[in-house]
Amino acid sequence: MTHPTTTRRDVLRGTVATAALTTLATGTTAAAAHAAAPRPRPGTGPHIGILLYDGYSLLDPTGPAEILSRLPGATVTMIAEERGAVRTDTGDVTVVADRSIAETDRLDVLLVPGGGNRGVLAAMANEKLLSWIRATHRHTRWTTSVCTGSVVLAAAGLLDGRRATTYWASAEYLESTFDVTCVPERYVRSGRIVTAAGVSAGLDMALYLASRIADEDTARAIQLAVEYDPRPPFDSGDAARADARLKERALRLIEDSQA
Amino acid sequence: MTHPTTTRRDVLRGTVATAALTTLATGTTAAAAHAAAPRPRPGTGPHIGILLYDGYSLLDPTGPAEILSRLPGATVTMIAEERGAVRTDTGDVTVVADRSIAETDRLDVLLVPGGGNRGVLAAMANEKLLSWIRATHRHTRWTTSVCTGSVVLAAAGLLDGRRATTYWASAEYLESTFDVTCVPERYVRSGRIVTAAGVSAGLDMALYLASRIADEDTARAIQLAVEYDPRPPFDSGDAARADARLKERALRLIEDSQA
Repeated sequence: MTHPTTTRRDVLRGTVATAALTTLATGTTAAAAHAAAPRPRPGTGPHIGILLYDGYSLLDPTGPAEILSRLPGATVTMIAEERGAVRTDTGDVTVVADRSIAETDRLDVLLVPGGGNRGVLAAMANEKLLSWIRATHRHTRWTTSVCTGSVVLAAAGLLDGRRATTYWASAEYLESTFDVTCVPERYVRSGRIVTAAGVSAGLDMALYLASRIADEDTARAIQLAVEYDPRPPFDSGDAARADARLKERALRLIEDSQA
Repeated sequence: MTHPTTTRRDVLRGTVATAALTTLATGTTAAAAHAAAPRPRPGTGPHIGILLYDGYSLLDPTGPAEILSRLPGATVTMIAEERGAVRTDTGDVTVVADRSIAETDRLDVLLVPGGGNRGVLAAMANEKLLSWIRATHRHTRWTTSVCTGSVVLAAAGLLDGRRATTYWASAEYLESTFDVTCVPERYVRSGRIVTAAGVSAGLDMALYLASRIADEDTARAIQLAVEYDPRPPFDSGDAARADARLKERALRLIEDSQA
């Protein structure tokens, strides 16, 4: 088993140098101009803040973070009530919040993820968190949520009288508890608030946000950059087409996987 | 703005109690039996280990972790050369490795994520990491990778003579550097090794793995649990259908977002 474990070649063929050479070779002048453009400095683009709280679902913040971090000059910051490690609903994984809410006042984009019952109920009851969400929302360009994160936005009073979406199993709760009209779409825009459906819907919403924050070409390039050409082996992700038994099984799996 | 910020109701209507009641009301005896089944204890299901290294891409480990953590009794552990915080390629986000490689010997599933040039080249040159991957692979049920993670598996000698997939921009590199036949599919199984295409393809692979580790019904229920009914606003995630300009722009965005 002798393998070249070090190499001077690039694993991705698209480093700036390679891209510039390819471009010169093909003579695509617009692309050549682009390839020669200076790298945008971090911090010169949108500042995206993602709020973590104990018991969030891992993909809710990380899917959109992956996509939005590719926006030119973007900064993505994980934020929590206090700095430090924040556990997911399953208790398996910890993402670090690099800033506390007290250290963060202005954001271009705020994203509130969803979580399990325990985490979401605690976030809804955390007046310090809700009041920070309200204060931050005053200056954001986009205030967004994934999954049951919309329930937290609603608890903060931000969804009053609005159309929104949420996790399929929480739509009834959201509508009956708050003055919200639920729309079963992947993401719903209402003014500068965008809510996404369950967990993985954050990816679709993030691409939409990328197109609005930058432009459609940038969003399409990011979609290619993360090779988001989804082909799940099954076709059972749509609650509107799922039978009662599969819904129960899905919710049971979530319940059983909670920490 | 007076809102009910605390509630005794459940945000998700599918808590075990609710599911059981619904089931009894509808009289579905199979489902009732299921709802009454004891919760599988954590640690009694598959042990899934995800290897982090400096410069991985955030969605590569977190997408599959979200899905695989819903398998009955599953444990998902983030692992790195040393315990502690591990930064992504963009430098924006940190996930904590709860175990070092020295503390981990047996895994049912090993997943190696991809990353930027810097991170992947360093992982390929890290003989301690490669030898742990080889040793761990001897006992896994499934050894898997996402994106350029397959290049790391190849550097460890695990893909010799095999069919595999990788990130679209790395296929040429993988084929020309190692004895691997690249197949442009979302995920490729070769024996008990499964490789996924770029970044988001880990979600599709994880559902496939869930169906093999448990069964197809469980995988379908997990797909519903994470509402994975993808509807991206654009259709530009497939490199085979992308023009050269968009590919250059995608790679430039990745390059520019690296820490």
